[in-house]
Amino acid sequence: MPKIIPVVMCTGHGAGLWPIARETMPKQFIPLFGRDSSFQRTLRLLSDPDVFDLPIVVTNGDQRFTIADQLQAIGLRAEIVLEPAGRGADSAAATAAELGLARSETALVGIFPADHVVQDGKLFVETCARAAAVAAQGRIVAIGIPPCHPATAYGYIRPGTEIADGVRGVEDVAAKPDAALAARYLAEGYLWNSGNVVFDAATMRTRLQAAARGAIGNGNANGASLGIRMLETDASAELPAIAAEPPALEQADTAAVIAGHFGWSDVGNWTAVWQLSEKGAHGNVVQGRGYVLDGTNNLVRSEDAVVAIVGLDDVAVIATRDAILVTSKAKADKVKDIVALVAANHEPEAASHREIHRPWGKYLSVDLDERHQVKRITVKPNGVLSLQKHHHRAEHWVVVRGTAQVTRDDETILVHENEAIYLPIGCVHRMANPGKIPLEIIEVQVGSYLGEDDIIRIEDIYQRC
Amino acid sequence: MPKIIPVVMCTGHGAGLWPIARETMPKQFIPLFGRDSSFQRTLRLLSDPDVFDLPIVVTNGDQRFTIADQLQAIGLRAEIVLEPAGRGADSAAATAAELGLARSETALVGIFPADHVVQDGKLFVETCARAAAVAAQGRIVAIGIPPCHPATAYGYIRPGTEIADGVRGVEDVAAKPDAALAARYLAEGYLWNSGNVVFDAATMRTRLQAAARGAIGNGNANGASLGIRMLETDASAELPAIAAEPPALEQADTAAVIAGHFGWSDVGNWTAVWQLSEKGAHGNVVQGRGYVLDGTNNLVRSEDAVVAIVGLDDVAVIATRDAILVTSKAKADKVKDIVALVAANHEPEAASHREIHRPWGKYLSVDLDERHQVKRITVKPNGVLSLQKHHHRAEHWVVVRGTAQVTRDDETILVHENEAIYLPIGCVHRMANPGKIPLEIIEVQVGSYLGEDDIIRIEDIYQRC
Repeated sequence: MPKIIPVVMCTGHGAGLWPIARETMPKQFIPLFGRDSSFQRTLRLLSDPDVFDLPIVVTNGDQRFTIADQLQAIGLRAEIVLEPAGRGADSAAATAAELGLARSETALVGIFPADHVVQDGKLFVETCARAAAVAAQGRIVAIGIPPCHPATAYGYIRPGTEIADGVRGVEDVAAKPDAALAARYLAEGYLWNSGNVVFDAATMRTRLQAAARGAIGNGNANGASLGIRMLETDASAELPAIAAEPPALEQADTAAVIAGHFGWSDVGNWTAVWQLSEKGAHGNVVQGRGYVLDGTNNLVRSEDAVVAIVGLDDVAVIATRDAILVTSKAKADKVKDIVALVAANHEPEAASHREIHRPWGKYLSVDLDERHQVKRITVKPNGVLSLQKHHHRAEHWVVVRGTAQVTRDDETILVHENEAIYLPIGCVHRMANPGKIPLEIIEVQVGSYLGEDDIIRIEDIYQRC
Repeated sequence: MPKIIPVVMCTGHGAGLWPIARETMPKQFIPLFGRDSSFQRTLRLLSDPDVFDLPIVVTNGDQRFTIADQLQAIGLRAEIVLEPAGRGADSAAATAAELGLARSETALVGIFPADHVVQDGKLFVETCARAAAVAAQGRIVAIGIPPCHPATAYGYIRPGTEIADGVRGVEDVAAKPDAALAARYLAEGYLWNSGNVVFDAATMRTRLQAAARGAIGNGNANGASLGIRMLETDASAELPAIAAEPPALEQADTAAVIAGHFGWSDVGNWTAVWQLSEKGAHGNVVQGRGYVLDGTNNLVRSEDAVVAIVGLDDVAVIATRDAILVTSKAKADKVKDIVALVAANHEPEAASHREIHRPWGKYLSVDLDERHQVKRITVKPNGVLSLQKHHHRAEHWVVVRGTAQVTRDDETILVHENEAIYLPIGCVHRMANPGKIPLEIIEVQVGSYLGEDDIIRIEDIYQRC
């Protein structure tokens, strides 16, 4: 039996988990439980070589370096495909089908969202293998989840007659219901539509009645410096929006569904995080410096500040350096709405983190005023910032750890720990870490305009010019 | 009639208003409503020259420079007296009596806590004047507050027969009651004991049966550089704890009470702050970048971060850079207890602010790691830091605003905006602001130990060596 080519969807950002998850650091890359992010957990699940082929990670570009970092951290490989954002589920299926067919005409493809978590990995893999056996007969097999409550956040699938061991036909595919309808679905044996689906790629192509063929470009040099092959879809091809009518999963002669009993969550909000976390005293979950007095079943997660909670039950307090959420667990689904409200008030924290990840490392703005900004910059070993200049600011760099190789106009200077260098306004400069340990510098910017858009990139090893 | 010598008590720190109020910046110095702190509001109340003499501010030392700053900001004068902390109410009365008698043998003294707020200032002054008229006949006149609810946080006073217009004798003085007793007091016409009291100093001295005379030293040079006369109690005199038996206010032949109808609060917790603040939509009070969705009657106060609240009523969320409180308003009196819990866990935020005020200005730690720390330092015009050296760290100073006069071993160097200077480990150095605008510098410390106790002060114009 052919292996499943896993296509891991990494395109959303998870507004329900703001302020930890934001556009600049989406939910799937955050370690919510233990050390690994859900992206890393997903990739580990898909690393069984008996069942899965080399995974393909689909993302919309901004996160490609984070993906490369996180793969490297767990020692796993994948192909990374850049796709313009948000063209819908059928479009993702079409892209996945074409990516699979590019490897083999008889490819089996599995679509797996990167931001779900699974309790029993072994059972998950077994379920996928059983789905694959049916998919290989020209089927599209959804993985349905036996509902434990009448959720209104998911679509539902009604299983029909059995096709093979545990795999059934599809009698009905339903959109997200209201509470009453959800209760009826629950009573009638519907399953949640988890968005995980295994299919025969050729069947999917036929069923979508629109080929994405040709939209997948060849590997380019984009990821070369990271040691990872990247494919890039051709954004200029102006693909038609793909929407099969009826959708692929509703075409009864090829649709199928298998119930996944492996313990699944899409971790859509902070209440789900609390549910999935190990509880401390009085049902409180405390991550970071949190204290609860006279309160039960709370979730406290703090990045930095000490958080004290008094006399409250069933709330989630999520504190980052620049944004704090306090929500009743019962209303956690409304967090998306308050993020929209915060965004409408032009607060940058709605979408951006203070710590920004770059292919060469990361930086954190630690102090900002009208005429100065202070950043802590961390450069990975062998990391190289772009060759750049600024029109409106001078910079003072103090190396606090490691060694920096600094290019300043025609000079190249090694700057060691506890040494500083001055970069006058207008000079062409670059910083690199030639050493074996991370380089940390404190950058003090002084000038009349300090925006990130006053960076004129002259040369960049990561092709960001 | 002699004027009242106001003795303003500035010795507590207001744990009920943590994390804004902490030992390093007590409640009375924080602007809770509008621009002024309650200390400044109190001094304004006491500035009517027909009723009050030059105020005396009693503090325990750490806050003397903050007091001087806040007086200067509102253009008012006072004497500042440093007293060892926490010797009890009768001790404060004894000190106040002696301070008054040092000015005049027939002195009238008023004790006014610095952390209370009054709604109707004119009526407050009138009430004090009426109390003074009776005090001048050798009485101790407490200002009682007609209770609006059966509070358990205050002592109670039962007024007796009328002595003069609105001033009555004292029938009973009661400690903080439980809820049932408080309800009985309310029904029986007791008043809250506000801690504000006006008395004849000679009577108080006699009644306390223990002289604090001699414990009050003469003015020393401590405040000279601030243009303010400071007295200092002689901490080495080992005063006996003063506790009159029965307490002064219970000695019926001299005790009296007047009801204050001027609208009073001791702002003991965040619920009181919410009550006294102007409400926005849905009863929410938002100070700083706060957003509330689906919630009513909340208090949000944020120093820096954006705060989002979802689906909660009657909570207070108080966010500072390094500590966050989330409390139900009903349990706001327990905040003291969680501060004790946070302190017991050795969290520095229980007592210390990240922004530290000094006589020369202030500093804020913006980034701290094992081997480096970054501070933003602000020096007032004419401010001068101590001449100092460090055993364990070098410092890089970048001037981002104003001009610094830097002494480094035998050199004196002017460092201008966008210039930097390096202070190697062990060098003797000093920074001063010779200019007309505040000086701001970014200090990058690099070293193996970064504690505040690695400052060897060689010389200090504020006598802190």
